[in-house]
Amino acid sequence: MVGKVVIAGAGPGDEGLLTLRCLEAIRGADVIIYDRLIPRTALRHARNGAELVFAGKEPGRHAMEEDEIIKLMIDKAREGKVVLRLHGGDPFLFGRGFEECLAVLGAGIPCEVIPGVTSAIAVPESFLIPLVLRGVSSSVAIVTGTEDPSKGRRFVDFQRLATAVNTIVVLMGASRIGEIARELISGGLKPETPVAILTRAFMEGNKVVITTLGSIVAGKVTVENPSVIVIGDVVQQGLRAMEMAGMKYEKVY
Amino acid sequence: MVGKVVIAGAGPGDEGLLTLRCLEAIRGADVIIYDRLIPRTALRHARNGAELVFAGKEPGRHAMEEDEIIKLMIDKAREGKVVLRLHGGDPFLFGRGFEECLAVLGAGIPCEVIPGVTSAIAVPESFLIPLVLRGVSSSVAIVTGTEDPSKGRRFVDFQRLATAVNTIVVLMGASRIGEIARELISGGLKPETPVAILTRAFMEGNKVVITTLGSIVAGKVTVENPSVIVIGDVVQQGLRAMEMAGMKYEKVY
Repeated sequence: MVGKVVIAGAGPGDEGLLTLRCLEAIRGADVIIYDRLIPRTALRHARNGAELVFAGKEPGRHAMEEDEIIKLMIDKAREGKVVLRLHGGDPFLFGRGFEECLAVLGAGIPCEVIPGVTSAIAVPESFLIPLVLRGVSSSVAIVTGTEDPSKGRRFVDFQRLATAVNTIVVLMGASRIGEIARELISGGLKPETPVAILTRAFMEGNKVVITTLGSIVAGKVTVENPSVIVIGDVVQQGLRAMEMAGMKYEKVY
Repeated sequence: MVGKVVIAGAGPGDEGLLTLRCLEAIRGADVIIYDRLIPRTALRHARNGAELVFAGKEPGRHAMEEDEIIKLMIDKAREGKVVLRLHGGDPFLFGRGFEECLAVLGAGIPCEVIPGVTSAIAVPESFLIPLVLRGVSSSVAIVTGTEDPSKGRRFVDFQRLATAVNTIVVLMGASRIGEIARELISGGLKPETPVAILTRAFMEGNKVVITTLGSIVAGKVTVENPSVIVIGDVVQQGLRAMEMAGMKYEKVY
């Protein structure tokens, strides 16, 4: 009898932000194929004897190639096993959850998808930065800062994006932040536009840097992985809340 | 002794998409002020004797005004109580969680924020529609379809947004969908651009309509509340997955 595949998001790194369904999926899985950015303690809920497979997914360095992951999911399910593919954050938002789901369904194997709390929203929120806010921002774009060379063409046009939304969240943007800031300015954003760089949220050594597009272009800021970058006037509002809550941050102007 | 306020997102309506921290907050609260779109069964986890207050939040009709909600939160916390403000979805994404947090902190009361699974991502995902996808979409904008008249000026410029991102998700767009579709076409999107209208997700009587911007402008589609509207080529990909999974949808072309 064929098993099944569950593709789940484990949230942004805090075990408390696992969903009830995700926890149940961890408890019930025979095989768990997990990414680097899942909450460290999440796997302690796996049952005794569950097979735990690390899939990696660091920028530019993967423990397993995507086709290996997919093959493993399908092979194990065909052995009758319940396979859990555990992504950090949400599995469809810059994970490969959708491609995996399509491949699994294409192999005739039942596939269940469990959404997760995405870092794109939860990381700013954990530092009290809203992405939309009445009177300040009615729209937020979530984009990737890196581009897959295999795509052939570039998708994120930061110049065009600059003034099309009120808030921009860049994921995986550490290595290209200078270029992105330049493009946003040439697209019409002021150099004074506030930027929050949120590094290692929900982990030890987390760090908040508040800066501006201009300071980034001037090379005053370096960004480490993993970071969520928030650009727009909402950052100023978040700063008010952070100060009221007595949260620490670094200012680089 | 002053109590505290917890502002939490209860996810998109499926009790299984509550986070562990949110569940714990429900169990531990003395007072729960809850919105209409939380999972129906979530409140059964409240402890005996907890005070449950319905805050409403239907389009255009609120059981409580926002300033009443904030006053209640602060008053109860000052009585030494643990107050849980329970939002549908994520509390900072088109909820008023940030404003509430700011008011609570401003009153000198400790405030904790618990991010939730947002409908903007989880609803499309529950119908196997990805918002970003390698080779198809590297950027998604999440916007509100309605505007608060008190804002004075309009924030979402759909004409400009049209070609600035690959995928657009409109929340609370039911009443203005025709106008939005027209603006997106005049901003450069083709009338054939696929649109998914996802109504009452995670509830009884949920419905998926796959259509196009052109068909919406032609008046062929009406949208009910609550709906999440996804615009972009990712819809076509989601359709493939839905068909493979044997999910039902209605096509209006």
